Amino acid sequence: MMEHASHRLRARRLGIDTHSESVVFLRKDCPVCRSEGFSSHNRVALAAEGHHAVATLYQVESDLLDRDEAGLSDAAWLSLGLHDGSHITVRHAPPVSSLSLVRGRVFGHLLDDAALREIIADIVAGRYSAIEISSFITACAAKPLSLDEICGLTGAMVDVGERLTWGKPIVADKHSVGGLPGNRTTPIIVAIVAALGLTMPKTSSRAITSPAGTADAMETMAPVALEEKKICDVVDKEGGCIAWGGALRLSPADDILIRVERALDIDSPGQMIASVLSKKIAAGATHLVIDMPVGPTAKVRDAETAAILSANLMFVAGRFGLHAQVVLGDGRQPIGRGIGPALEARDVLAVLNCDKDAPQDLRDRALVLAGALLELCGHATTGNGKAQAAAVLDNGQAKTKFERICAAQGGMRTPPVSRYRKEFFASTDGAVSQIDNRRLARLAKLAGAPEDKAAGLELHVRLGGKVTRGGRLFTLHAEADGELAYASNYADMNTDIIQVTQT
Amino acid sequence: MMEHASHRLRARRLGIDTHSESVVFLRKDCPVCRSEGFSSHNRVALAAEGHHAVATLYQVESDLLDRDEAGLSDAAWLSLGLHDGSHITVRHAPPVSSLSLVRGRVFGHLLDDAALREIIADIVAGRYSAIEISSFITACAAKPLSLDEICGLTGAMVDVGERLTWGKPIVADKHSVGGLPGNRTTPIIVAIVAALGLTMPKTSSRAITSPAGTADAMETMAPVALEEKKICDVVDKEGGCIAWGGALRLSPADDILIRVERALDIDSPGQMIASVLSKKIAAGATHLVIDMPVGPTAKVRDAETAAILSANLMFVAGRFGLHAQVVLGDGRQPIGRGIGPALEARDVLAVLNCDKDAPQDLRDRALVLAGALLELCGHATTGNGKAQAAAVLDNGQAKTKFERICAAQGGMRTPPVSRYRKEFFASTDGAVSQIDNRRLARLAKLAGAPEDKAAGLELHVRLGGKVTRGGRLFTLHAEADGELAYASNYADMNTDIIQVTQT
Repeated sequence: MMEHASHRLRARRLGIDTHSESVVFLRKDCPVCRSEGFSSHNRVALAAEGHHAVATLYQVESDLLDRDEAGLSDAAWLSLGLHDGSHITVRHAPPVSSLSLVRGRVFGHLLDDAALREIIADIVAGRYSAIEISSFITACAAKPLSLDEICGLTGAMVDVGERLTWGKPIVADKHSVGGLPGNRTTPIIVAIVAALGLTMPKTSSRAITSPAGTADAMETMAPVALEEKKICDVVDKEGGCIAWGGALRLSPADDILIRVERALDIDSPGQMIASVLSKKIAAGATHLVIDMPVGPTAKVRDAETAAILSANLMFVAGRFGLHAQVVLGDGRQPIGRGIGPALEARDVLAVLNCDKDAPQDLRDRALVLAGALLELCGHATTGNGKAQAAAVLDNGQAKTKFERICAAQGGMRTPPVSRYRKEFFASTDGAVSQIDNRRLARLAKLAGAPEDKAAGLELHVRLGGKVTRGGRLFTLHAEADGELAYASNYADMNTDIIQVTQT
Repeated sequence: MMEHASHRLRARRLGIDTHSESVVFLRKDCPVCRSEGFSSHNRVALAAEGHHAVATLYQVESDLLDRDEAGLSDAAWLSLGLHDGSHITVRHAPPVSSLSLVRGRVFGHLLDDAALREIIADIVAGRYSAIEISSFITACAAKPLSLDEICGLTGAMVDVGERLTWGKPIVADKHSVGGLPGNRTTPIIVAIVAALGLTMPKTSSRAITSPAGTADAMETMAPVALEEKKICDVVDKEGGCIAWGGALRLSPADDILIRVERALDIDSPGQMIASVLSKKIAAGATHLVIDMPVGPTAKVRDAETAAILSANLMFVAGRFGLHAQVVLGDGRQPIGRGIGPALEARDVLAVLNCDKDAPQDLRDRALVLAGALLELCGHATTGNGKAQAAAVLDNGQAKTKFERICAAQGGMRTPPVSRYRKEFFASTDGAVSQIDNRRLARLAKLAGAPEDKAAGLELHVRLGGKVTRGGRLFTLHAEADGELAYASNYADMNTDIIQVTQT
């Protein structure tokens, strides 16, 4: 390849957030575009002082940039390690050979371990554009991944990131398949399990498509964005933590794939299994309980789907030496009352405090899961896990452990309270016959969750519960009046989210 | 929905070319982002003086924009009909309901006519992001479109755009399935067919994945970017034209889908059929000959694929009352010598001029296809079409007709000549045993085709032809030394594009 002095461009940080996809902006009439014959949407290779990145090119025909400037999105700027005064070169990106494997998969050729490793390595290196990732995800959903492919994908996703090690024979972990708003059992389970002397270094995600992830809710009670060293210190000291895993580069491919899955609202079983297990394996777990709520508007909709998914999860986990157990649960309605980071945190604190009006469904689900985990780890005999868990919750040891964990993570704090609220009422007497988890979650998101920690909604009714005309069904919480208006509007147009049947 | 004065933003044209996807740039700390709770990559609804558009939001944390400004890509600016001083409002985009149909298709539910109409209408209205289009395309490739779906897609693509009518019982047309570099028969066929008194208003595309489209090659000989009125005048006067169809909004969905297909390098039979036929039906064709070269590195790789594709093309065409006939051809090597707009135009002119050294394969292929079209239209009896075509080519009538068409389109011109060239030679004595069309096309593109009209390559050998060590295989043509260097580098690393076997 020839180098041209004129191909060096002054790098300019445009401060544009394009997520993980690097974008470069060049004048259409700049020397590089002219001599290289670039056109908009070309994939180009950027280089600066030993750093390389592949970016999508947008051409500019205005005075936004000078002709010797290259404007960079934040992702591009950071991956090249640039600073003011840096220069970069831009050239045609070499063909990404793993894309031909993706095309092959579209047309039905299964991917072996080596192929999946190549694809995942290229994705993490930023060599795929968002539309290429979209095609990969869609292909793996339209023609579901085989069990071998799921294992290959899981292994590839583990290998491309960091791995935590804990030097303990048993490292407990828990995952929820999700889709159930308010299902915030994790902080309670960690507190119980750690109070009983087991190691449970829990790394959680922020919300992806839901109104709150565990990390979002936990962050309203203590810092969660901890460095690896800090996480180790907390776990050394307290036996457990509830931290955000995002800074650790555990299965970094997962974070990239999930952004596109979210935008497409596509969630295929094979990718879900690889996503869950790659994170857990990378986090050093040896024993894993998986919470799988089943219901018509949960992520897993029926018993048959649950059975197949459970079997596949346990099969793939087994291939990696991870002891996994799936605990099915009732997914017909949310768990707890709050939906949204702070509102869910309040439910968690009420259960840990053994408040009289704490949501009993949340308490019970946390005890079932903690019990299953204690039994799986050999800490309780079969059938006795739940009672053992209840004992440390009721005697205050779990609460104390939780407070100590919060303190170790940087200091316990009180969840914030919303500025704007609006209540919604039943239009008839009757009993609650159906609750739509998905639209309820959407409502909480329209109200501002999870970005606004105090936003979301509080549910005042349960399935089968009696209501009277004019009685409260739920309260919206928001931090901005625009969002309260959007959410209210959606609620008014979807009065069947909570169905009341006359009795 | 509530309106806020603060939601009005000053529109600023950033001059960024993002193709058909509208993009809006907002300060992360602007009042709209704060009150609406936007985050980067959100899909947002833009409105200005009665115009509406859906756009992808990129958030900006820099002084690129003021807090009361909205930066717009060209696609967004143009679709909103903005001018200096315009104000726009930005809000959450309403959910696009047809996306749930796409998700259903990913998971295997076929799409009926109404579903396809809804999807295509939303795509043309700009309501799909590129990754959503990518998912639609991939789903329809991974689980191939059924015949009913292909018909539904074709009809939806026709209905969403303009339709031309010619007031003639027979309107001849021709299409090539492509994949064969240099296969530039169209100008010759139009000249022959129009010289014989038939109507052939040919609208052609520019290159999509190839080094030259018919419109690109034709543009080196005459203007092709004609308005509808001008096209009608040319056809009225001369019976035929060879114009660029891009300005006519014939099947506008096709143009959008094809851009993403190109980026993914995915080309599925069902979408190809809908793409070809929707354009031809919208262009008012009644009789269509389809050139289908078959060869290991052509788009159609073997006889079985060709048979299925031909049957499906003719079936779908029949549903729309279009008489279609597929003519299979040898797709093992390029046709003609030149690959690239001007180089192909020179081959066309040589054939029309009946030059002694004109490429005979191009001449023969044009005559076969013109003959088939004459027979299909009932202008020649079976078996006599080719002879009739040869007669008007040999007696100069086709050449005269071509010159008259060029004059009517705005004036005939001479194809440009490249500034930089490099020859490549055989490294051994022998016979040419294999030619890789795909990599040859890639080479011509690396040299700058089709953006640089004079760029591309000239092939000096044919399959089975004898070569001697040091003899010329091909010549690269480029307009910039950077491109010549890229293309040369690729050629040096791919010396097996043209395989010479010792005899």
